Amino acid sequence: MNEKAFQEFYSEDFSHCYGCGTQNKEGYQIKSYWEGDESVSYFEPKPHHTSIPGFVYGGLIASLIDCHSTGTGAAALYDEEIKAGNKPEFYPRCVTASLLVNYLKPTPIDCVLELRAKVKELKGKKVIVSVNLFAKGEVTATGEVVVVRVPEGWKP
Amino acid sequence: MNEKAFQEFYSEDFSHCYGCGTQNKEGYQIKSYWEGDESVSYFEPKPHHTSIPGFVYGGLIASLIDCHSTGTGAAALYDEEIKAGNKPEFYPRCVTASLLVNYLKPTPIDCVLELRAKVKELKGKKVIVSVNLFAKGEVTATGEVVVVRVPEGWKP
Repeated sequence: MNEKAFQEFYSEDFSHCYGCGTQNKEGYQIKSYWEGDESVSYFEPKPHHTSIPGFVYGGLIASLIDCHSTGTGAAALYDEEIKAGNKPEFYPRCVTASLLVNYLKPTPIDCVLELRAKVKELKGKKVIVSVNLFAKGEVTATGEVVVVRVPEGWKP
Repeated sequence: MNEKAFQEFYSEDFSHCYGCGTQNKEGYQIKSYWEGDESVSYFEPKPHHTSIPGFVYGGLIASLIDCHSTGTGAAALYDEEIKAGNKPEFYPRCVTASLLVNYLKPTPIDCVLELRAKVKELKGKKVIVSVNLFAKGEVTATGEVVVVRVPEGWKP
């Protein structure tokens, strides 16, 4: 596992996301790393992140899958730049075009959640990311996320 | 518009959701109402609910679409019970089987978001809900959510 998370390679302008921005002090600050050809992230839900008592609310699961996927897409696009002989200062920033989450079973809240993702397709500015979310060793939700690179030079 | 929101008809056991539980003091407490054959909900994002500065983060949009849809499914199933001559004390509680969100354009954060949903299909315990999310009069995201009724008598 690398020392620095994908999200630590975003430029300051793109580090304010509630889900994954290192500058958003009230947000989840999720962190993603390569582990071989998979990207991983770990998140411990707070007790108030509940749906039905004992279980994680679906919106958090969707948020984790979303931000872990935009991070994975950004890291994959950065790797393409490196392969092409470029050396950008920051990771590109991706936004979500579509997010599909399948909730297979209730996700227990009293554990660290593990997200493992793979790049399913990378073409131009678009990356499709597949995600499994594990709780206590079981896959409780899966995701498929289409992310798109923010155009070069675009500023918020 | 009715005076009481769908979520105020959930039993206490099912009122702890971070997205829509009336008992979750740290949550979004989203409220949904019928308006003709559409269900509506309004939500004002906080400044920290950002993605890229100026825009709402996708996880919040997914959360609003999710909880508004489980509420709409519950209300629709309750109406079926009434048509069948029953008069349950509470709304049934639905959970999400799958959530699809299409992000059509960036959603501005400095406004009240409006969700409008319709029941696309209702069959047995399953309801499919279609949602449009409006910001400043424009549809910026759409959702399709499959929700399923929690079995009668199930307790958290």
